[in-house]
Amino acid sequence: MITINEDYLKLQASYLFSDIAKRVESFQKTNPDKEIIKMGIGDITRALPQACAEAMHLAVDEMSADSTFRGYGPEQGYLFLREKIAREDFESRGSDISPEEVFISDGAKCDTGNFQEILSLDSRVALPDPVYPVYLDTNVMAGRTGPFVKGRFEGIVYLESSRGNKFIPDLPKEPVDLIYLCFPNNPTGAVVTRDDLQKWVDYARDNKALILYDAAYERFIQDPHLPRSIYEVNGAKEVAVEFRSFSKTAGFTGTRCAYTIVPKQCCGYDRQGHPHSLHSLWLRRQSTKFNGVSYPVQRAAEAVYAKQGQEEVEELIAYYLNNAELIRHKMTELGYECVGGIHSPYIWIYGGQSSWEFFDLLLNKAGVVCTPGIGFGQCGEGFIRLSAFNSLDNVQKAMEKIQKALS
Amino acid sequence: MITINEDYLKLQASYLFSDIAKRVESFQKTNPDKEIIKMGIGDITRALPQACAEAMHLAVDEMSADSTFRGYGPEQGYLFLREKIAREDFESRGSDISPEEVFISDGAKCDTGNFQEILSLDSRVALPDPVYPVYLDTNVMAGRTGPFVKGRFEGIVYLESSRGNKFIPDLPKEPVDLIYLCFPNNPTGAVVTRDDLQKWVDYARDNKALILYDAAYERFIQDPHLPRSIYEVNGAKEVAVEFRSFSKTAGFTGTRCAYTIVPKQCCGYDRQGHPHSLHSLWLRRQSTKFNGVSYPVQRAAEAVYAKQGQEEVEELIAYYLNNAELIRHKMTELGYECVGGIHSPYIWIYGGQSSWEFFDLLLNKAGVVCTPGIGFGQCGEGFIRLSAFNSLDNVQKAMEKIQKALS
Repeated sequence: MITINEDYLKLQASYLFSDIAKRVESFQKTNPDKEIIKMGIGDITRALPQACAEAMHLAVDEMSADSTFRGYGPEQGYLFLREKIAREDFESRGSDISPEEVFISDGAKCDTGNFQEILSLDSRVALPDPVYPVYLDTNVMAGRTGPFVKGRFEGIVYLESSRGNKFIPDLPKEPVDLIYLCFPNNPTGAVVTRDDLQKWVDYARDNKALILYDAAYERFIQDPHLPRSIYEVNGAKEVAVEFRSFSKTAGFTGTRCAYTIVPKQCCGYDRQGHPHSLHSLWLRRQSTKFNGVSYPVQRAAEAVYAKQGQEEVEELIAYYLNNAELIRHKMTELGYECVGGIHSPYIWIYGGQSSWEFFDLLLNKAGVVCTPGIGFGQCGEGFIRLSAFNSLDNVQKAMEKIQKALS
Repeated sequence: MITINEDYLKLQASYLFSDIAKRVESFQKTNPDKEIIKMGIGDITRALPQACAEAMHLAVDEMSADSTFRGYGPEQGYLFLREKIAREDFESRGSDISPEEVFISDGAKCDTGNFQEILSLDSRVALPDPVYPVYLDTNVMAGRTGPFVKGRFEGIVYLESSRGNKFIPDLPKEPVDLIYLCFPNNPTGAVVTRDDLQKWVDYARDNKALILYDAAYERFIQDPHLPRSIYEVNGAKEVAVEFRSFSKTAGFTGTRCAYTIVPKQCCGYDRQGHPHSLHSLWLRRQSTKFNGVSYPVQRAAEAVYAKQGQEEVEELIAYYLNNAELIRHKMTELGYECVGGIHSPYIWIYGGQSSWEFFDLLLNKAGVVCTPGIGFGQCGEGFIRLSAFNSLDNVQKAMEKIQKALS
């Protein structure tokens, strides 16, 4: 008899987005003439940079002639792209990352979800609360947690991010083996300083722990003193894997390209305490279960690193950050406490009421849809997330509506 | 301390392709003037169909304007593609598969590798020998096998395919839960009849087993009486998941698109024997660990189903099958026993010597590179695989060289 992976049955059905959809639908029925502006969604709205589109067209032309056609590419990604990433995203900022340490993939979601497969099932996992749900769910699916009791999974160490610690979690009080961190954070938009990040790296070195560092939003960091990569911190190459993406920086959410850095000296241990290269294990995992990213997509990603691509990406980031600034400014003016929105496209807003009450207030009075913070973890209760990934026009309209409704 | 998944340490390093590369390099050094023709590789050589390239160009244009841009797509794939697959690949051939049962992915390798994640670790696995190594390796990585002893993994039931059973394995004599089948087979090129496949489906129904059916080469089947899908066999929807790919049919090895059929009535069981929908579990897995296939790639795949796309794909298949026929004919004429090459791009050739001896003979006497059968499993010993995925010109030259060398 074929039996299922029963750890899947522990997963909690996420009703967040269907609940949101239901409330929006009900509002629309009773208010058919009122415009609704969706400010909750984490997806981008502006087009792929022209430099990327042009590179993709050229690559498609290559694929459509026998003489220039390319079949299977390297599972790890083409060297032309890995070289540019290593040089432009790391070496140029003082981090010594080589092209051999870069793995191209079709998404940071896939990579953060898959990476735990090369680690043992008894690893004790620490992850932020609130946070992007994929870190938790993939560990539940793998069997690294107990059951779901009173809103939390047993066996997980929740790193609480709250007003008390300015949304930078404290080091865990009990020993942990695997630590997820995400800065600029989704959903809070909080950024970490070099000193705070150093504490985590030191902790990992002292405890032979591993940090999985999600830097998908690093490009939004404007302050040169803030670390954009964990490798800007001493000793991180021994204990950290970093995930990055073209999704939010270059508009690739529908085009699909990301990359993961696995430094050669980063190790896991067997039960006898002997070190094993995580780079070799991940290469084996990717070679066996993945066949590389579409060639035209890799050419499109490469174009991000040329002059035109850089300029277009900067313009996109500036555009979304301007939206974020408008949102943050207006919500602060209205008396709400805001986190994020400076080096991040997300603004995390404390409403002085439950997340869903605040959600209903914004929807019913202003016709604006946000994401209730409780959807990202228990510590999200009382907050909502607004996203800057909308058109300037929509952001301005939404802020005017909120101002009218709440002031 | 972060510990690794020690099941990875059981994996045998595959020296097959590096051994091949070393022998080819050594031959080239001693014979710098001799031309080498690579007939081993399973990658295609001819360009993406024009219909696909044109669709991809249009989609890239859509992505590069704000008004038509598409961000995150559905994890399961766009309905426009799932509808065409359900209609053209299944309904039109009498199999009642709905678009909801189609999951678009970036490769059949990924899907065959990932699908086992939703099944329990105590599932007893049966897989063909010889066969594509991913089925075995991903089960080793997950921990479903014992150690590697005398050339085989303990705990795996090997379904032997040999001259004795005409390369269609017999039903297992001991109970198994999870069965991998691949027809037309890689590497043997053998095809299964409807009656033989029915036996497997009946076995699975009787034993509540699950069949993972890899049909990546189905398009090469020319005989209308042979099943192209396992769903052409009675009762298969209850017990079988089918994997397909655009790689070998429409030249997508570098463009990346595939799909998996998980029928709604196909079930796994919990320890209490209660059925659970594998469709729901796979949807949950894909939603959590995957973000969908690049939009322009899905448009390219869709173009396969329009008139021009169909004609171009048929022409490609006919071209490779003509190569296969040339290879099979010549090798048979030279006195070698051949399997495959009729409804398959692979020709599996018995050499009357060890796989590596035959490999060396073809390389040193004819300058032709093949794949030694032993690389696909113990039952591959004595065989080599020749691939028809080359240019007609190269195939003709290779056959002339082999004829001169061996006759």
